[in-house]
Amino acid sequence: MAFPAKKLIGDPINVVTEFIDGLVETYPGLQYLDGFPQVKVVLRADVPYATYNKVAVISGGGSGHEPTHAGFVGEGMLTAAICGDVFSSPPVDSILAGIRAVTGPMGCLLIVKNYTGDRLNFGLAAEQAKSEGYKVETVIVGDDCALPPPRGIAGRRGLAGTVLVHKVAGAAAAAGLSLADVAAEAKNASEKVGTMGVALTVCTLPGQVTSDRLGPGKMELGLGIHGEPGAAVADLQPVDVVISHVLNEILSTETNYVPITRGGRVVLMVNGLGSTPLMELMIVAGKAVPKLQLEHGLAVDRVYTGSFMTSIDMAGFSISIMRADPPILQRLDAATKAPYWPVAVDGNRPPAKIPVPVPPSPSAKSDEPRSRPLQLNEQGQILEAAIEAAANAILNLKDSLNEWDSKVGDGDCGSTMYRGAKAILEDIKNYPLNDAAETVSEIGLSIGRAMGGTSGIIYTIFFKAAYAQLKVSSHSGVTSKQWAEALAASIAAVSKYGGASAGYRTLLDALIPALSVLQEKLDIGNDPSTAFLLSSEAALAGAESTKHMQAQAGRSTYVSAEMLSSVPDPGAMAAASWYRAAALSVEEQKHKS
Amino acid sequence: MAFPAKKLIGDPINVVTEFIDGLVETYPGLQYLDGFPQVKVVLRADVPYATYNKVAVISGGGSGHEPTHAGFVGEGMLTAAICGDVFSSPPVDSILAGIRAVTGPMGCLLIVKNYTGDRLNFGLAAEQAKSEGYKVETVIVGDDCALPPPRGIAGRRGLAGTVLVHKVAGAAAAAGLSLADVAAEAKNASEKVGTMGVALTVCTLPGQVTSDRLGPGKMELGLGIHGEPGAAVADLQPVDVVISHVLNEILSTETNYVPITRGGRVVLMVNGLGSTPLMELMIVAGKAVPKLQLEHGLAVDRVYTGSFMTSIDMAGFSISIMRADPPILQRLDAATKAPYWPVAVDGNRPPAKIPVPVPPSPSAKSDEPRSRPLQLNEQGQILEAAIEAAANAILNLKDSLNEWDSKVGDGDCGSTMYRGAKAILEDIKNYPLNDAAETVSEIGLSIGRAMGGTSGIIYTIFFKAAYAQLKVSSHSGVTSKQWAEALAASIAAVSKYGGASAGYRTLLDALIPALSVLQEKLDIGNDPSTAFLLSSEAALAGAESTKHMQAQAGRSTYVSAEMLSSVPDPGAMAAASWYRAAALSVEEQKHKS
Repeated sequence: MAFPAKKLIGDPINVVTEFIDGLVETYPGLQYLDGFPQVKVVLRADVPYATYNKVAVISGGGSGHEPTHAGFVGEGMLTAAICGDVFSSPPVDSILAGIRAVTGPMGCLLIVKNYTGDRLNFGLAAEQAKSEGYKVETVIVGDDCALPPPRGIAGRRGLAGTVLVHKVAGAAAAAGLSLADVAAEAKNASEKVGTMGVALTVCTLPGQVTSDRLGPGKMELGLGIHGEPGAAVADLQPVDVVISHVLNEILSTETNYVPITRGGRVVLMVNGLGSTPLMELMIVAGKAVPKLQLEHGLAVDRVYTGSFMTSIDMAGFSISIMRADPPILQRLDAATKAPYWPVAVDGNRPPAKIPVPVPPSPSAKSDEPRSRPLQLNEQGQILEAAIEAAANAILNLKDSLNEWDSKVGDGDCGSTMYRGAKAILEDIKNYPLNDAAETVSEIGLSIGRAMGGTSGIIYTIFFKAAYAQLKVSSHSGVTSKQWAEALAASIAAVSKYGGASAGYRTLLDALIPALSVLQEKLDIGNDPSTAFLLSSEAALAGAESTKHMQAQAGRSTYVSAEMLSSVPDPGAMAAASWYRAAALSVEEQKHKS
Repeated sequence: MAFPAKKLIGDPINVVTEFIDGLVETYPGLQYLDGFPQVKVVLRADVPYATYNKVAVISGGGSGHEPTHAGFVGEGMLTAAICGDVFSSPPVDSILAGIRAVTGPMGCLLIVKNYTGDRLNFGLAAEQAKSEGYKVETVIVGDDCALPPPRGIAGRRGLAGTVLVHKVAGAAAAAGLSLADVAAEAKNASEKVGTMGVALTVCTLPGQVTSDRLGPGKMELGLGIHGEPGAAVADLQPVDVVISHVLNEILSTETNYVPITRGGRVVLMVNGLGSTPLMELMIVAGKAVPKLQLEHGLAVDRVYTGSFMTSIDMAGFSISIMRADPPILQRLDAATKAPYWPVAVDGNRPPAKIPVPVPPSPSAKSDEPRSRPLQLNEQGQILEAAIEAAANAILNLKDSLNEWDSKVGDGDCGSTMYRGAKAILEDIKNYPLNDAAETVSEIGLSIGRAMGGTSGIIYTIFFKAAYAQLKVSSHSGVTSKQWAEALAASIAAVSKYGGASAGYRTLLDALIPALSVLQEKLDIGNDPSTAFLLSSEAALAGAESTKHMQAQAGRSTYVSAEMLSSVPDPGAMAAASWYRAAALSVEEQKHKS
């Protein structure tokens, strides 16, 4: 079955005028002549009527090649673009209107792609304009390299290389050159460029049914830009092979279409045909450059990659190669206000890659192997016991966590937490336990190494943030207040990067109440271990309360409220459990000591 | 049957690194860190390592959204872009490498789209960087307006509005602001922008099979940029209806996502999703602006139209609306060297359309009705007779021309020539026959009005060129030498615009030999009418000789040599016939007088 191609348009008859509407809304430097639907002329808003003191550079042709031609109107490039209907040459009156609007005493240059309709309509307009007293020159561009020379003049169509000719001519005109000189530069440029294209799909005109001319797995070589069949159909090949073929055709010494020989310097243009993503065009550019250098012995001075001259919605690309004579490079590099001429392409090419920086010295330390002190001080002993207790609590809770998670998530919370706890218990023998801040950092590294999953990153962030805070605040021992500040920093980081707040049914619903009680109890002067213990009860209560919460983050957002109400959030339960175990351990050791 | 999507790539696993290769080949201002395949970081080539004296602005995320993020690296926008694999958040080490490479004493701002993976990986990198002593701030962008607020944080994804946030932050950093101030401007911008998208197709990951999720005639509203299903599927509508719906959703006072109210000023971004041609994006922009103005009572200060944040090869667009506070406009307008930030969008908007210029006075004359002089002078009488003879010769030759043309062309040469001749015979009663130059001009107008087809344009060019030449050279009467010069000018124009030369099997093969004999005979002092007559014999001989020519222009290029050898070129025969008839008429009148 055949369907009209999906397009974001209204009435197909109006696509060109509506395109121009959007173009001038986007670019305040562009205007159009108020002659829709017959006269579709886009011109520079800053060129005075009939008194322009430079050579006007005018191009145009059928539409469907956007941004060509109207998108290249601007100071330093085209003075006006004459737009025909889709794939139809503009009528003579429209071309004449454009000439009259922008041509001053210096005259105008018409740049015309080599299609019979364009040649004749622009030619007639040129003769009419001359008979009205205008100075007019015409340069015809036929850069196509796909067909062998015996086909005659009809064979060399105007393709994307024309855009480079527009730029050379526009820059020459902007430099104040005479009409004869601008025309000579344009003609010279047109003789130094060759183009060949490859299509993966056929273009579909607005309102029409998509052709199935090109089946799956096929591509067309040497395509035209108006839906006309290419020179050959072939099986789709890896892009490497396709590029090599295209470059060989353009640079063929048999056809001798472009005067480029080994040892020379070139400009490369990789042009998308309408619906080719930028990623693919860049891949083509990235592969074409070394091929030109190594296989053809050419230096590549400039690379232009983008969709410059399209064929409606065709997928594919064309490659244009131009000889990079210094005067041409100067014109290509000259500034322009044309919206679609690529910026930031000019200039010398520094090394493309630089080494990955090594971490700065403060952090390099963390890569050194850490080691357990020969003798643990009191805080070190308490810390070790608390860490072991917390980790063991997670080991014991593994199956419950998995069971809860199977109801509200993907069932692996227990296994994930288990991996982290296990890694801590393995690594703890090397933790520098007398230095609490560095030990917290090591816990983060153990988790980052082993835990995995979203929870793994969240806990790594948790311990990184605590470490950063402890490093700033603590020097010898860590006070209970500093531990509370570290917990606050951890919660803030997890909330910020994870995006959850209190009540979102996450681990924060255990930790936020715990922090709140911890700070409160410390503030009123409670003994630190008592404050810790009381806060751990708040953690448990908070985790239990998640049963009544609607999920706001993570996978549980897709689970119904009834299902959620039967189980607590496993992440919150895990957090409450290790926190509670640590608090009990600290309390226990207080009584021991 | 399902086929892998056609893509211009090599190994799918390398698409991101190969994209970066092409990007840095194209833009000499960009570099990358030499850490492929893990570390894929694009950075400004002009920022010194670790001593950059401004705030570094860093963004990134999964690839497949090109030109986002790497295409927005450049002075005045991003300092570095961290690229993940396609649709995958970059790993922490890669983000850290980017931070270390470009962050100096002023610190860095991370701009992160609101996806869990990005938040966590960038968050962890931020915390690690802080622990290494870097100043780091993070702003998270969630501009999606497609889903209702109760979905919570997971619901508001980071979409194309993020590019505007990049620009605001980059410009603020370039202006030398502190990290806190740059972060505040970025956060403010992120809260003033809303985005919603519409997709016509589903994107296809490199190497995968294209999904048929969206059938013919269907579109998806409120899409994501990672192939995730949109908020709703609907029948494809005219683009007008689609745009209205999208604008209503973004500006909904129910969701209240963006702080924009009637009477306000906004910035509009129309973003293509990967394979949408520029023509369609411009049509969307052209329709969105008046809708914002008239239906929503908003002034539109800036319009950005292009493919900024894509979803591989998805067809469709998103619209972003940002409140145009003056400080934001100032940042958006600031210069940048980022390759893909649109140029020529800033500044005031002059009237978009200007009147079609009227023809200048010399030509206005030609629109006045011409009239036959009351009394014909001798030259006028000769001219009238010659024109009538030439036109009648064409009327008589109509059927032969059609017959020849049916063998070598499309069979209408006789009918087309007939229309021109008939029009001349109708109009001749109004020709200003005593003024030869103006009469030649009138012949051109008669042909232009009635003849049509390629031949119609070619003959119009022929007479325009003759007229321009006669006007320059002749004043009272026209000498035989001036007639020859006019014929030479006509031949040159037809050759130039039609693209043919001698031997191409066209009308020039009659006219060029004629001109040659005419000039030769006049030069040796022959009587003008004799010279004319002799040259007309050369015209006939030339036309006959076309039987032995291989076609080089026009439709005959597709006809075999055997077929061509049996018939002369009909265009050449027509030209020889009217030329011969005119010469015979002039000779006859010489004997009469």
